[in-house]
Amino acid sequence: MSEDSKFFLKDSDVPKQWYNLVADLKEPMSPPLHPGTKQPIGPDDLAPLFPMELIMQEVSQDRYIDIPKPVQEAYSRWRCTPLVRARALEKALDTPARIYYKYEGASPSGSHKPNTALAQAFYNKEAGIKKIATETGAGQWGTALSYAGAVFGIEIQVFMVKVSFNQKPYRKAIIESYGGSVVASPSELTNSGKAILAKDPNNSGSLGIAISEAVEVAATNDDTKYALGSVLNHVLMHQSIIGQEALLQMEMADDYPDIVVGCTGGGSNFSGLCNPFLGKKFRGEQDVHAIAVEPSSCPSLTKGTYSYDFGDTMKSTPLMKMHTLGSDFMPSPTHVGGLRYHGMAPMLSHLVHHGHVEPRAYGQKECLEAGIQFARTEGIMPAPEATHAIKGAVDEALKCKAEGKSKSILFNLCGHGHFDMQAYMDYFSGNLAEDSFDTKAFEESLSAIPAVN
Amino acid sequence: MSEDSKFFLKDSDVPKQWYNLVADLKEPMSPPLHPGTKQPIGPDDLAPLFPMELIMQEVSQDRYIDIPKPVQEAYSRWRCTPLVRARALEKALDTPARIYYKYEGASPSGSHKPNTALAQAFYNKEAGIKKIATETGAGQWGTALSYAGAVFGIEIQVFMVKVSFNQKPYRKAIIESYGGSVVASPSELTNSGKAILAKDPNNSGSLGIAISEAVEVAATNDDTKYALGSVLNHVLMHQSIIGQEALLQMEMADDYPDIVVGCTGGGSNFSGLCNPFLGKKFRGEQDVHAIAVEPSSCPSLTKGTYSYDFGDTMKSTPLMKMHTLGSDFMPSPTHVGGLRYHGMAPMLSHLVHHGHVEPRAYGQKECLEAGIQFARTEGIMPAPEATHAIKGAVDEALKCKAEGKSKSILFNLCGHGHFDMQAYMDYFSGNLAEDSFDTKAFEESLSAIPAVN
Repeated sequence: MSEDSKFFLKDSDVPKQWYNLVADLKEPMSPPLHPGTKQPIGPDDLAPLFPMELIMQEVSQDRYIDIPKPVQEAYSRWRCTPLVRARALEKALDTPARIYYKYEGASPSGSHKPNTALAQAFYNKEAGIKKIATETGAGQWGTALSYAGAVFGIEIQVFMVKVSFNQKPYRKAIIESYGGSVVASPSELTNSGKAILAKDPNNSGSLGIAISEAVEVAATNDDTKYALGSVLNHVLMHQSIIGQEALLQMEMADDYPDIVVGCTGGGSNFSGLCNPFLGKKFRGEQDVHAIAVEPSSCPSLTKGTYSYDFGDTMKSTPLMKMHTLGSDFMPSPTHVGGLRYHGMAPMLSHLVHHGHVEPRAYGQKECLEAGIQFARTEGIMPAPEATHAIKGAVDEALKCKAEGKSKSILFNLCGHGHFDMQAYMDYFSGNLAEDSFDTKAFEESLSAIPAVN
Repeated sequence: MSEDSKFFLKDSDVPKQWYNLVADLKEPMSPPLHPGTKQPIGPDDLAPLFPMELIMQEVSQDRYIDIPKPVQEAYSRWRCTPLVRARALEKALDTPARIYYKYEGASPSGSHKPNTALAQAFYNKEAGIKKIATETGAGQWGTALSYAGAVFGIEIQVFMVKVSFNQKPYRKAIIESYGGSVVASPSELTNSGKAILAKDPNNSGSLGIAISEAVEVAATNDDTKYALGSVLNHVLMHQSIIGQEALLQMEMADDYPDIVVGCTGGGSNFSGLCNPFLGKKFRGEQDVHAIAVEPSSCPSLTKGTYSYDFGDTMKSTPLMKMHTLGSDFMPSPTHVGGLRYHGMAPMLSHLVHHGHVEPRAYGQKECLEAGIQFARTEGIMPAPEATHAIKGAVDEALKCKAEGKSKSILFNLCGHGHFDMQAYMDYFSGNLAEDSFDTKAFEESLSAIPAVN
């Protein structure tokens, strides 16, 4: 074990390829289906929304895909991110466990999102696209894509869920600083938005509505495409740079994780860290126990069904085989905006279904408390989303203490919370909402899942 | 020149000593004077406010002082900070100059302030002190000291200028997350605060009032001391870790700066980066041109007089020989809260007076524009304070372009702006205040400077 606390790769040692877990899966994944024909979709079905290079990555079986030079150069402004041994947290927990975290909040926009935003902006630019439309909930994705637009000279239009837009004026400021434009959704800029506002002028928006607006802009303009910040295979693959770096950094630390932990909303930050480790496991090189932590108010992996379902609430996307609470499900308005998605990445759902990843749900309050303990020891103010991963790691470290075992635990600290401090303010003022899960609404939502399965 | 873009030191290579420029000064500094006797003060005069170890550092002539092990350990959670070659900015400017920045925003609290906060908290803890009282304006110092309190188990009470306290609720949230307490100043907790509120219940506070409240708490409680986040010699020395690291990192980059740049409020981030380079210059080892950038609305170095003056508006501190606008001077309420101080660190004032540092003042708008260009190229959203250093570096790079010279420029990016986005919001909404400097008020303020000089 190294005496050092932080591990950095030299620029020349940062991995030059993304890793695609599909190549090492033991069981084949179920293909996405056309919502009309219920037949597997082909590349042409996705062409109105994505450039062909990304569609090819979406269906690729290759183990490694070269990162284009301009994306490598953009990564080099902050990558590698630090791998840190959390010695102060270990001491506070009085645990024999060795806790490491990979700090993706060190990126320009403060989360793991630029890893795929830069790649997507690059491939769109190469395909001659002038503009990308997208949605954002908590704001991390819209911020990251705006930065990527500045890097590759492509216009970015962000539809931000109105309730978040109003709560977080600093998000608008940073998106505009990067040169992106952002409007509250539902907006008057699209037919979908207008139709919703005509019915309810005070509609406060949802991710589903914002997706519909962004997709409409992309589908109705030749020079415009759409971009998604999680869920899809190519997005998860772009995030694999996290785990690829971590493999090398754990070598520098002269250690290897027994346990890897990530929080899950759409599944991309978890997969980014964990898939390269799971790949080594599937190839028989090294075992690992992977834990996916979700919020108990939106528990797709622990309470959802594993079925074909729509990716959006408007039921316009291809059907994907995934853990889902039903596309009608409306999670309670907790603060972890980045983890409030009814479904889950098909690849991660597949891993959970086959028993390769342990899913676990935690409440908001216990996660924030773990986040505060982390801030007081390691110093970084974690994003509310990331506190779920911290809580998972802390629980495993306390289990080590109870059992007198010295395991190595690695988790993904996927972002800082500087733009999302409301959850902490509510916590300290005693106004934090209780976790809630509406079982009746969930059952109704389940019953609306299409009968393909 | 290295091909790499980022330079990190291994934990074991991070400097283990602070550097004290006093040892290499060509001309001796003028001592602080007792405000009553006008005679040089001794250590005992400062003992009610500071632990003896810090007082000894304040007057030390030693070139190097060992960093205590526990402070080294605390530093190791994020230090070294990255030294980055700003290749994207260079490209955007089309300059032959090589631009490097040292990114102190990578610290837990987001600025250079923890470098001294941790040291001060440690020495207070060693001296058996239970609590530290302090003031904060923009909030960076209060945040950093609260984190340091969490690390060393010492209570932190922050008096935050009321207008900032109300504008920045996230600052309260992060200070509380670290376990510190923060109140708006003037408060009902001190006699100074009560007296001011009795006269004017709506008083919106000032740094001078907040200092008075914190000093009163320290002076009237045996187990409580006071801490200052800039200006004093020992604070500047703690910040030298920045430049000490940068010296080694520039070696890794196979380069050496012709020009070093920092922004100046009290002088500590500028001195932290630049003093180790100036030391090499004074020892005849390597030449360097140092540029100190201040806001044109609070131009102590470019318009102030070099005189003995009080450090606070209540005229209760020792008299310090420094560049000052007069302790009665009230700068216009611009957004660069961290640069709004009527005086300047005596050591930096001394360097400017003797022609070793070039002072320069810029307006807020041109600095924010440089900051936005920086964000769109290098990715990081700079603190409004730090945009002054960016503007200084950009101007030097453009001068290189005009003259066809390839110089190496290093500046201190002393913090990110995540908690201080209001300036950018005002810029994009067209509501940015014009820079202003009230010449009449300045002349009156000058005439109130005590006749010691």
